[in-house]
Amino acid sequence: MPLTDAQRAEIEAHAQASTPTKRPTVAALEDILFTAHPVLDHGFVRVIDYMGDDAAIVQAARVSYGRGTRKVSEDAGLIRYLMRHRHSTPFEMCEIKFHIKLPIFIARQWIRHRTANVNEYSARYSILDREFYIPSSEHMAAQSTSNRQGRGDVLDAETSARVMDLLRDDAIRCYDTYENLLDTDNGPGLARELARMNLTLNTYTQWYWKVDLHNLMHFLSLRIDPHAQYEIRAYAEIMLDILRAWVPVTAQAFTEYRVGAVTFSASMLAILRRMLAGETVTQADSGLSRREWDEFQAALRG
Amino acid sequence: MPLTDAQRAEIEAHAQASTPTKRPTVAALEDILFTAHPVLDHGFVRVIDYMGDDAAIVQAARVSYGRGTRKVSEDAGLIRYLMRHRHSTPFEMCEIKFHIKLPIFIARQWIRHRTANVNEYSARYSILDREFYIPSSEHMAAQSTSNRQGRGDVLDAETSARVMDLLRDDAIRCYDTYENLLDTDNGPGLARELARMNLTLNTYTQWYWKVDLHNLMHFLSLRIDPHAQYEIRAYAEIMLDILRAWVPVTAQAFTEYRVGAVTFSASMLAILRRMLAGETVTQADSGLSRREWDEFQAALRG
Amino acid sequence: MPLTDAQRAEIEAHAQASTPTKRPTVAALEDILFTAHPVLDHGFVRVIDYMGDDAAIVQAARVSYGRGTRKVSEDAGLIRYLMRHRHSTPFEMCEIKFHIKLPIFIARQWIRHRTANVNEYSARYSILDREFYIPSSEHMAAQSTSNRQGRGDVLDAETSARVMDLLRDDAIRCYDTYENLLDTDNGPGLARELARMNLTLNTYTQWYWKVDLHNLMHFLSLRIDPHAQYEIRAYAEIMLDILRAWVPVTAQAFTEYRVGAVTFSASMLAILRRMLAGETVTQADSGLSRREWDEFQAALRG
Amino acid sequence: MPLTDAQRAEIEAHAQASTPTKRPTVAALEDILFTAHPVLDHGFVRVIDYMGDDAAIVQAARVSYGRGTRKVSEDAGLIRYLMRHRHSTPFEMCEIKFHIKLPIFIARQWIRHRTANVNEYSARYSILDREFYIPSSEHMAAQSTSNRQGRGDVLDAETSARVMDLLRDDAIRCYDTYENLLDTDNGPGLARELARMNLTLNTYTQWYWKVDLHNLMHFLSLRIDPHAQYEIRAYAEIMLDILRAWVPVTAQAFTEYRVGAVTFSASMLAILRRMLAGETVTQADSGLSRREWDEFQAALRG
Repeated sequence: MPLTDAQRAEIEAHAQASTPTKRPTVAALEDILFTAHPVLDHGFVRVIDYMGDDAAIVQAARVSYGRGTRKVSEDAGLIRYLMRHRHSTPFEMCEIKFHIKLPIFIARQWIRHRTANVNEYSARYSILDREFYIPSSEHMAAQSTSNRQGRGDVLDAETSARVMDLLRDDAIRCYDTYENLLDTDNGPGLARELARMNLTLNTYTQWYWKVDLHNLMHFLSLRIDPHAQYEIRAYAEIMLDILRAWVPVTAQAFTEYRVGAVTFSASMLAILRRMLAGETVTQADSGLSRREWDEFQAALRG
Repeated sequence: MPLTDAQRAEIEAHAQASTPTKRPTVAALEDILFTAHPVLDHGFVRVIDYMGDDAAIVQAARVSYGRGTRKVSEDAGLIRYLMRHRHSTPFEMCEIKFHIKLPIFIARQWIRHRTANVNEYSARYSILDREFYIPSSEHMAAQSTSNRQGRGDVLDAETSARVMDLLRDDAIRCYDTYENLLDTDNGPGLARELARMNLTLNTYTQWYWKVDLHNLMHFLSLRIDPHAQYEIRAYAEIMLDILRAWVPVTAQAFTEYRVGAVTFSASMLAILRRMLAGETVTQADSGLSRREWDEFQAALRG
Repeated sequence: MPLTDAQRAEIEAHAQASTPTKRPTVAALEDILFTAHPVLDHGFVRVIDYMGDDAAIVQAARVSYGRGTRKVSEDAGLIRYLMRHRHSTPFEMCEIKFHIKLPIFIARQWIRHRTANVNEYSARYSILDREFYIPSSEHMAAQSTSNRQGRGDVLDAETSARVMDLLRDDAIRCYDTYENLLDTDNGPGLARELARMNLTLNTYTQWYWKVDLHNLMHFLSLRIDPHAQYEIRAYAEIMLDILRAWVPVTAQAFTEYRVGAVTFSASMLAILRRMLAGETVTQADSGLSRREWDEFQAALRG
Repeated sequence: MPLTDAQRAEIEAHAQASTPTKRPTVAALEDILFTAHPVLDHGFVRVIDYMGDDAAIVQAARVSYGRGTRKVSEDAGLIRYLMRHRHSTPFEMCEIKFHIKLPIFIARQWIRHRTANVNEYSARYSILDREFYIPSSEHMAAQSTSNRQGRGDVLDAETSARVMDLLRDDAIRCYDTYENLLDTDNGPGLARELARMNLTLNTYTQWYWKVDLHNLMHFLSLRIDPHAQYEIRAYAEIMLDILRAWVPVTAQAFTEYRVGAVTFSASMLAILRRMLAGETVTQADSGLSRREWDEFQAALRG
C-alpha cells in the first residue's frame, strides 16, 4: 500500500479545491488529478499539473491568436500530419507534471532522459522510507540466454520464493543498519548524506518529473517497448493511459505512427520489394544476418 | 497598432470561456491571459498558458503530496533560500507559454536561449505581414565609441528622421518585391521559401515561446541588463511585469538576489577588504585594469 | 568565390602545423581539415576540429580501458546494432566542429537544432560582408501547388533572370544603405546593432557550429531529406561526405538504417501483410487517406 | 587499488601510440592522457580525449579563419572579458571526455548535470565489480546540527571504525547474494537486470562522461564549493587540476571570476555602501536575517 493515511488526506484536501480558469482544461484529466495510480509493489504515478490539450497543439502549429473556427476533423488531420512527419515543436507546447514513486535502480534508468525537469526527494536532507521493491513471482525471471540484456523464463515457484527472501532479507538488514547509523541516541548519528550509501538499489525514492508532450512520447516509445525492462514498462503503461485521457487525438496518432509503426532498413525494403513482386526470399539469399532476418520476420508477422 | 479587428475578436472570444480546474490558478495572471501587451511599434507579448505558482515551487522542493500546511512566511523563506543558493530545479517546475511578435533581427538574438520550446510562424508555409520595426527617435542612437557592441548618443532630430526614412523606404521596397515575387497572376509565383529571402531583418515575425520559470529568469537576467540591446530589453521588461503578476514571491527574490545583485571577483573582494579596513585604494594600486576598476566603482556606486 | 586571399593564407598557415597526439586520429579527415568546401554561391563548410572515430564509439559503448583487441568486424557489428536499436549515447561520444558560411534565412532554419554549440559572427560588434545568396537558375522554382511549403517547377530562363535581378537589386540597395548608415564621416554613424536591421535575409553570415555525432546524424537525416529546402540540403550533402571520411563504418550504418530506411505506420503494416498474403489492395479498401496512400506507394517503389 | 594489471596494460598500450595531427594539441594534457588519477578508495578520473585549447576559444569568439596573429596577452584579455561577462558560447567550443569510476550514490548526484554526454557501464548487460566505497576515518562525520544537508564533526576513532565495519559487512553480504543470484550452476541464475537491485548504493560504477568547457566549469563551480558533498568534491578537485593543464588561461580566469568570486544581494550591496561610508552596521540594523548576515560576514572575511 503506497500511501499513508496522512498522505491520502493531504491529496484529498488538495483535490477538492476548484477555481475557474481561462486556460485549456481537460475534464478527463481533471478527474484523475492528484490520484495515486499504483505501480509495482509500493510505487505510484500521480498527475500534479498539466498545460494544454489537443487543440493547443493545433493552435501552436498555426501560431494563432485564438482557438480558431476549424472543424475538429481538420484539427485531427493536422495532428496526424505533424506526428507522421515528425514535426515535433507543436507537441512541445503541452506540458505535464508527475509525482512518481519508484525503486532507485529504475530511477537510474529513467533519469537518462535528459529533456525533463526533475526534483527528487533528497536523502541528504531527509530520511528515506522503509520500502523496497521485491518482484512478484510472475516477473521473477532467469537471465535470457539469447539476449545479453534481457530476461528469459520465469523461475519456478520455489526458486522464486527463495529469491524473494534473499532480496527482502538483505534490504531489511541494510535498512536496519541505515536507521542505526542515523540514530543520534543509540547509534553514531552519521550524516544522512553518508548513511544513505548503505541502502540497496531496490529502495524506493520519489520525484516530481515534468516533461513536454513530445519528450513524454519519446520516453513512452522507448519504455513501452517489449525490450524495455519490465519494471519501467509498468510505469510507461500507466502513463500511456494518462496520455489517452489528456490528449486523445494525439494519443491515437501516437499509437498509429509510433508505437505500432515499424522501421525497415534499406536492405529490408529491397527484400520487401522482391517479396511483393512474388519472389520467395529466404535468410540465405536475403543478405541479412540471422539476427536482422529474425527481426524482419517478427515485424512482418506483427 | 499590432492587431487587426479579426485578431482582437478571436482573442476576446478565447478569453471569455472559463472552466473550473483543480490546478493551481493565479488570479492576477488570469486577468491578463491572452491580452496583447504592445512592445516596440508593432510587436506584442501575450501570455497563452501557464503551469504552477509560488506554492508549486515549494511543493516540488519538498516533493510533497499536497499543498501542505506551512505558513506563507515559511514558503517565502524557502523560495528566497532556493534563489540565493541557486537551487534551480524547483523553479523548473513552473512553466509559461507566450505568443510574441518581434522583429526578425531580435528573434535571432532571442533564439540563442536554447532551453525553451519554440514554434515560429513559417514563411515557407505562409506570407509574412507588411510590418517593419522602425526605431523611434529616442532610441535612434549612434555607435558607441567606448563599447564596440553598444549604442552611444541619440541622433539629432533631423538625422534621426532621415534614418527612419531610409529604413522605411528599403523595407517597403523589399516587401513590394516580395509580394511581386509571390504573385502568381502578374509575377513569377516564386516559391514562398525563396521569396522570403528578399525581406529585411526588421520585418516582424511571431512565435509561441514556452519556457520554465528557471530559464525565464535566466533569460530576463541577461536581457533586462543595461548592456542588452534596447529592442530585446523592451520585451524583457514587459515579461518581468508578467513575472510579478504570476509568482510575486519568486519575482521579489529574483529582484533581490539576481537583478539587483553584483558579483565581485576574487581581486575585487580583496580590495573591498582593504577599503573596509580603512585603506584608500586607487586604480593604480588596485591591481585591476582600468576597465575592471571602472566596473568595480560603478557596482559600488549602484 | 567565398574566400579572400588573406583568408586563404590564414587557413593555409593553420593547416601546415602538425603535432603528435595520442588521441584517435582520422587520416582522411586530417586531409581536409580547415579546407573550405564551397556551398551555394558564397557559402562554405570547413571542419575545424574533431574528437573520436569509429573505434571511440565502440570503446565508449563498452566503457573500456583501452582500444581493446576485438576484430574490426566485431566493432562494425556493434556499431550497426547500436544504430539499428537507436542506442544513441555511444554516438554522442564523438564531436565535430565546423566553420560555416550561410545565408541568414538558412541560418534561421538551422539554429532550430538546439543540441549544438554555436558561436555566430556578431553584427552588433562587426560589419557583415557584402555577399548575398542569389539562387542559380536551376534552383529558381515556383511555389508548389500540391505542397504548401515546397517548390514546384523551375521557372523559365527569362523569368528566372528577372527574379535574380530583383533579388540582387534589393540586396545591393539595402547593403548600400547599411554602409551609409554606419558611415561616421558622411553618414549618421548609426549603431551597428541597429543598422544591421536594414539587411536582407539572403545576406551571408557565418558561425562556428559544434555538435556530437548523434545530433549531427539527426540533423542530416532531417536536412538531407527531399522535403528539406534545397539550400540547407546543399550543406547537409557536403556534411554527409565529411561524415563518410570521418567515421566510415558509422556512415555506412547511417545510410542503411536511417537515410535509406522507411517507417510504416500500424495501418500500413496491416496492408503490407494483406499484400504479402497475395491480396491486391487499393486505396479505396486500404483505409488510408489519399495522401497517406501516395506516401505508402512511394515508399514501396523507393 | 583501482586497476587490475590487465587494465594497466591496456591503458599503457593505448597511451603509447602517437600520430601527427593538425588539430590544436596541448602537451601538458597529452602527458596525462589515459592516466588513471585515483579518487576515494577505488575510484578514478581518466582523460580519454579532448578538443580545443585556450586559443580555440579566442578563435571561436572571433569566428576566424585561422589562428590569427594577435599577441598572447590580447588573447588572455579576451578570455578574461568573456568569463567576466558570462559570454559562454566560446567556451562551449572546447570539449573533454573522461572515464570515471565512482560510487553509485555519487553518480546519482552527478547525473543531475544534464548538459553532458554519458555512457555508463550497464549492469543489465555486465556484472559489476566487488568494490564499495568505505569513507576513511577523516571523512566519517556526524550529521550537522546547523545544516540539514551537511556534515558536522568527525566521529571519534572507535565509532568510525565501527561504522566502517557495518558498511563493509552489509556491502559484502549484499554482493555475495548478488553473485549467488546470478549463479547459473548453484544459484537461480536470476536476470542481471533484476539481480543488480540487491547491491548497496556505495558499489562502484563507471562511465564515460563528455562535456564542453562551459558546462565543465559550471559543474566544477557547484561541486568544488565547500557546501558540496565531500565525495563529489574529491572528483571536482582532480578535474580542476586537469582544467589547469588543459586551458591554463581559462582556468586562471575561472579562479578569479567564478571560484573566488562572491555575489552580494541588493540588500547586501546597500549595507556595503553604508559600511564604506564609515557607518558601523550590525545585524540588528542591517535588515538581513541572521542566516544571511552570517553569509555576508563570511564573504567579507573570506
